[in-house]
Amino acid sequence: MTTHKGFDPQDFRAALGTFTTGVTIITTRAADGEPIGITANSFNSVSLNPPLVLWSLAKNARSREAFANAKHWNVHVLSAAQEALSGRFARQGEDKFSGLELDEGISKAPLLNGCTARFQCRTAFSYDGGDHIIFVGEVLAYDRSELPPLVFQSGQYALAARKPREEVRLGSTPPPECSYTEDLLGYLLGRAHYQMLHALRQLLSTQALDERSFFILSVLSIRDGLSLQEINGFISYTGMLADETSMSALESQRLVAIEQDEERTRYVLTADGREASLRQIALAKAVEEDVAAKLGTGDTMALKLLLKRLIASSDPGMPDLWSPR
Amino acid sequence: MTTHKGFDPQDFRAALGTFTTGVTIITTRAADGEPIGITANSFNSVSLNPPLVLWSLAKNARSREAFANAKHWNVHVLSAAQEALSGRFARQGEDKFSGLELDEGISKAPLLNGCTARFQCRTAFSYDGGDHIIFVGEVLAYDRSELPPLVFQSGQYALAARKPREEVRLGSTPPPECSYTEDLLGYLLGRAHYQMLHALRQLLSTQALDERSFFILSVLSIRDGLSLQEINGFISYTGMLADETSMSALESQRLVAIEQDEERTRYVLTADGREASLRQIALAKAVEEDVAAKLGTGDTMALKLLLKRLIASSDPGMPDLWSPR
Repeated sequence: MTTHKGFDPQDFRAALGTFTTGVTIITTRAADGEPIGITANSFNSVSLNPPLVLWSLAKNARSREAFANAKHWNVHVLSAAQEALSGRFARQGEDKFSGLELDEGISKAPLLNGCTARFQCRTAFSYDGGDHIIFVGEVLAYDRSELPPLVFQSGQYALAARKPREEVRLGSTPPPECSYTEDLLGYLLGRAHYQMLHALRQLLSTQALDERSFFILSVLSIRDGLSLQEINGFISYTGMLADETSMSALESQRLVAIEQDEERTRYVLTADGREASLRQIALAKAVEEDVAAKLGTGDTMALKLLLKRLIASSDPGMPDLWSPR
Repeated sequence: MTTHKGFDPQDFRAALGTFTTGVTIITTRAADGEPIGITANSFNSVSLNPPLVLWSLAKNARSREAFANAKHWNVHVLSAAQEALSGRFARQGEDKFSGLELDEGISKAPLLNGCTARFQCRTAFSYDGGDHIIFVGEVLAYDRSELPPLVFQSGQYALAARKPREEVRLGSTPPPECSYTEDLLGYLLGRAHYQMLHALRQLLSTQALDERSFFILSVLSIRDGLSLQEINGFISYTGMLADETSMSALESQRLVAIEQDEERTRYVLTADGREASLRQIALAKAVEEDVAAKLGTGDTMALKLLLKRLIASSDPGMPDLWSPR
């Protein structure tokens, strides 16, 4: 427990930062008409009747005078895609509004778009808050979109992974002596992967293809004209390997053609092969849309983010499939 | 855009709720010594010097008098495991503190444990906030743990999936005509699954086992004495199926024994089979600990939560492996 005298500003800030927040940009217009905006996560709702919200501004902020004199200001709850905008409005000195289209609001305060929610306010009170001023505003108008909101926690942007009201359980609680539970990450990743693969497998069976052929076609659809060794460099992480037999099978299905020059053999997709691969990708995208509809856009973004972080942290050194040659 | 006169309280609340927050429990002690506590997400930091925080309390709250008269109150930033505690302190009439161990604080205000951060405060100001009172407190002492915080967004609890400062990219940006990108959920799930499987595959090869055998042993380690058909009911989602040849191979490796009665053939794990399975589970747990160390505890919890939601939403109707018989 750190008591008052021993407060280290950085450590105290870190402790406060564990309280998760959204991210807002708050805008107003200076007396001379200049648009003013800053990023703030000190926003919160206060009252429903009358509808009041609050946020606080450092007394030494360059925008202090503008906000102190302004009658109106707008709070923009930023969406997950507005991380760069958050950064722009958090820095000083830039022409923050450059290139931004503004919507028409009920006051002259700039109204940004692409946000999760917007609250157009009139200052109701301003209160002393130590080195900050607390602005309490009456909400005169508001709107919101379905865009997932941007989150901030411990100095990092984040996305929310929402918990349903009922606990998500896949099976019964295992007896205590069972060392294998549904909570094992490896089990969850495997089961999620195989369940997502279910529809693709059905398509592959109508295409008379196995999973290995699917991976080979996928790689060739991104980078054509590869040698067997290069193909395997991209698919070996699956535990499957292509060999001349598997390539011949794809050739006899007229999905792949062989290009032989003096030095080596390269494989290219035929028009049929590209068509087959496109159908697989279209199906994968349809399955993903179905998942996104069930989980929600923000949660699906969060899942992808976490999977990418997991992959990056356990990457055995796979070659970059998309790098230009 | 909804303007003032048209405010529907429920819709306005929903718009405010898109601003993500942490969850706190704020405690004090009434004049008669009764412990008081409420769940609040209206907390925020205000000032570093002096160290001030704020939160707001409904004017019609039962605890209003206690907080208005108290000099001291404590803010507890709840951890991800404290969802039930949040619910308990959000409801009225319960003996909220029943069974809770309290820590010794600098005032008589109850100090809960198991939190992400705690701020022990003395009321500095209290301000009018419409139907709420805004309490601004000077932080006299604080502490924090490494426990991941609980998040609240749009009326649901959540976990944060943090974004690193640098964008997570697995490969180069694909050319615009490429329809196959690293952003495809199916690709990410497959690659994450196969990368997590990498260490297990190495173990399996020292055990002279293939993946199908791994799934068979795993199922038998949870539910012993299954018929071939029952085993396949549990592993068919992987696309792999057990047959008598695969079971005979496991029997000749002395990992599985065959129990024949009049009606049918059942398979049971031998002591060696159980030992082999335990080594696989131990490895899977070690791989998971490694991931959790890299991603962080909270992000790993978020990943598991999202995978469970994905699995539950795309479950083709798998039998419950852990259900009691």
